[in-house]
Amino acid sequence: MRTLTVHLAERGYDIHIGRGLLATAGHFLPLVQGRSVVIVTNTTVGPLYLRTVRESLAGLGVRPLEVVLPDGEAFKNWQTLNRIFDALMEAHCERNTLLVALGGGVIGDMGGFAAACYQRGMPFMQLPTTLLAQVDSSVGGKTAINHPQGKNMIGAFYQPRAVLADIDTLNTLPDRELSAGFAEVIKYGLIRDEAFLTWLEANMAGLRGRDAGLLEEAVYRSCAHKAEIVAADEREQGERALLNLGHTFGHAIETGLGYGQWLHGEAVAVGMVMAARLSHRLGWLQETDVKRVEALLSAAGLPIRGPNLGAARYLELMRHDKKVEGGVLRFVLLESIGRATVCNVPEARAIHAAVEYS
Amino acid sequence: MRTLTVHLAERGYDIHIGRGLLATAGHFLPLVQGRSVVIVTNTTVGPLYLRTVRESLAGLGVRPLEVVLPDGEAFKNWQTLNRIFDALMEAHCERNTLLVALGGGVIGDMGGFAAACYQRGMPFMQLPTTLLAQVDSSVGGKTAINHPQGKNMIGAFYQPRAVLADIDTLNTLPDRELSAGFAEVIKYGLIRDEAFLTWLEANMAGLRGRDAGLLEEAVYRSCAHKAEIVAADEREQGERALLNLGHTFGHAIETGLGYGQWLHGEAVAVGMVMAARLSHRLGWLQETDVKRVEALLSAAGLPIRGPNLGAARYLELMRHDKKVEGGVLRFVLLESIGRATVCNVPEARAIHAAVEYS
Repeated sequence: MRTLTVHLAERGYDIHIGRGLLATAGHFLPLVQGRSVVIVTNTTVGPLYLRTVRESLAGLGVRPLEVVLPDGEAFKNWQTLNRIFDALMEAHCERNTLLVALGGGVIGDMGGFAAACYQRGMPFMQLPTTLLAQVDSSVGGKTAINHPQGKNMIGAFYQPRAVLADIDTLNTLPDRELSAGFAEVIKYGLIRDEAFLTWLEANMAGLRGRDAGLLEEAVYRSCAHKAEIVAADEREQGERALLNLGHTFGHAIETGLGYGQWLHGEAVAVGMVMAARLSHRLGWLQETDVKRVEALLSAAGLPIRGPNLGAARYLELMRHDKKVEGGVLRFVLLESIGRATVCNVPEARAIHAAVEYS
Repeated sequence: MRTLTVHLAERGYDIHIGRGLLATAGHFLPLVQGRSVVIVTNTTVGPLYLRTVRESLAGLGVRPLEVVLPDGEAFKNWQTLNRIFDALMEAHCERNTLLVALGGGVIGDMGGFAAACYQRGMPFMQLPTTLLAQVDSSVGGKTAINHPQGKNMIGAFYQPRAVLADIDTLNTLPDRELSAGFAEVIKYGLIRDEAFLTWLEANMAGLRGRDAGLLEEAVYRSCAHKAEIVAADEREQGERALLNLGHTFGHAIETGLGYGQWLHGEAVAVGMVMAARLSHRLGWLQETDVKRVEALLSAAGLPIRGPNLGAARYLELMRHDKKVEGGVLRFVLLESIGRATVCNVPEARAIHAAVEYS
């Protein structure tokens, strides 16, 4: 097991990464003493890991309340969020009750947002069970639900008290979701660590073959990047925005197709290709760099061409994105492989060209 | 005009208190430059003051979006909150859009919560138009909506950028709501300022007669207390809890009767009488102190006897309150007039006696 600390002004917290963590009661100990606990999970993850977590907690004398939600991005909304609140109210949960989010990004985002809002804030803990959640969404305190017209539009910055990334849970992850997670892993390489990108190129076959050592390394290095960025910029005033590489395009794809059609990582993969193309058009990346991005994403089992929504629809969708300022679209672009920057792109033609290359 | 500053670690802000503030564009100037603005108000306050605020903003070249919600505590819920989000999304509001909450406590709490959540936080400004909002809810950053089973259960700590308490708006306030506001004013005297309580006793007739000078003084002294407490304890870990004098009982009344039957201030007034009785029973207050509390609340036009819900129902309702810890009811009680403390009360009999004295 390896441990990273996210250093924050108000309250730092640890990310533990390794095998068999869910079954080790001791990891829960510092957080459950004297507290009631509610586990929020979904109908897919619950049957796989709820029992393990329940037994860990039982070893500490805690009998948790369990809230099992329907699975999928399509349920990341008010209605489902309210099911958490209803359960908390019905069980008379207090503001020091610990909320444990057991699942992928949707459960983590929605469970975290519920924790942020219930009685104006209760402690919570992330137990991410997908690669995407382990390397990205469980770290950094961004919580949210979707609005019908925009992804993650309603949410809060709210930090967990701890994150346990149990690598063993990746063994039950469908191939498609494992691939989707690699999109965010590759992103760290693209925006700030070319050496890591090269490592990923060399090890992608082993990673897709679920070699536990390689996966632990990939999760650790990804979390280390994320923790460093979040510590420097919790509220996304500066460098943290670079983590959105591919996300403005990607959110447009997710919203345009309807939540749940494409996985988030798939949309981000295509979005990163679009960002690379736009970076090429603006004179930063070489054509060979764009090909390199495409090759690694393809090797990870990810799509590199977007759905044909039409350029006008892409623009309309992107104008809703949180990265819009003063009506001007802002994109994270690549100055070179391993180096990203935030850039206002007033030239609609260039954006059209980037999204239409499909 | 008088100005108070709320000193907070992250970002302090000013409360301006005086006459004619809504019509003075300059007060908005520091916050609207380069921003789009959305005004959230209701069907009662909108017709009275929306035009004034609109013209102030027009003087600065800003044409705000306007969201007019139904009026009343019964609408402080998800459905109404979503109307704000829908309007923000439809107008493509960005995360630096300024949300202006123009109205009483419900509009301030709900508008503030919308601002806290929209794109994980947009700046907002409070324009409180009721006495209750001016002396209490607009200051301190508590935002929330109600859950069907509990008041203010879903919310956030989220600070405004500025508060403009225009005393002139109190001229259009119904007598009943003016009285309800005095409950919170009297509370400051009871928990920490006996001299202020004496001043209120001496000036209650003039205050109810809406003497602008007296009202400005009452609002200023109330806000000064609140600002001092909030600065010392933003997240209600300590002294801030004392502001809940009468609120555990009061919330039980509001929830038990259905939101909107009693005004919040009326429920708090009765709750403070119950807290005084309980304090008397525990040997702190004299019978004459309890009578003094009752006399001032009566002079302010407030009820001093609760609805007959039955002691069992009161207890059931209070067990849902945010002030419950480890299943034990915690009350703010009075050690003496002008001095409050938080106290676990395990003795159900004493609580029964306090709520049944009606």
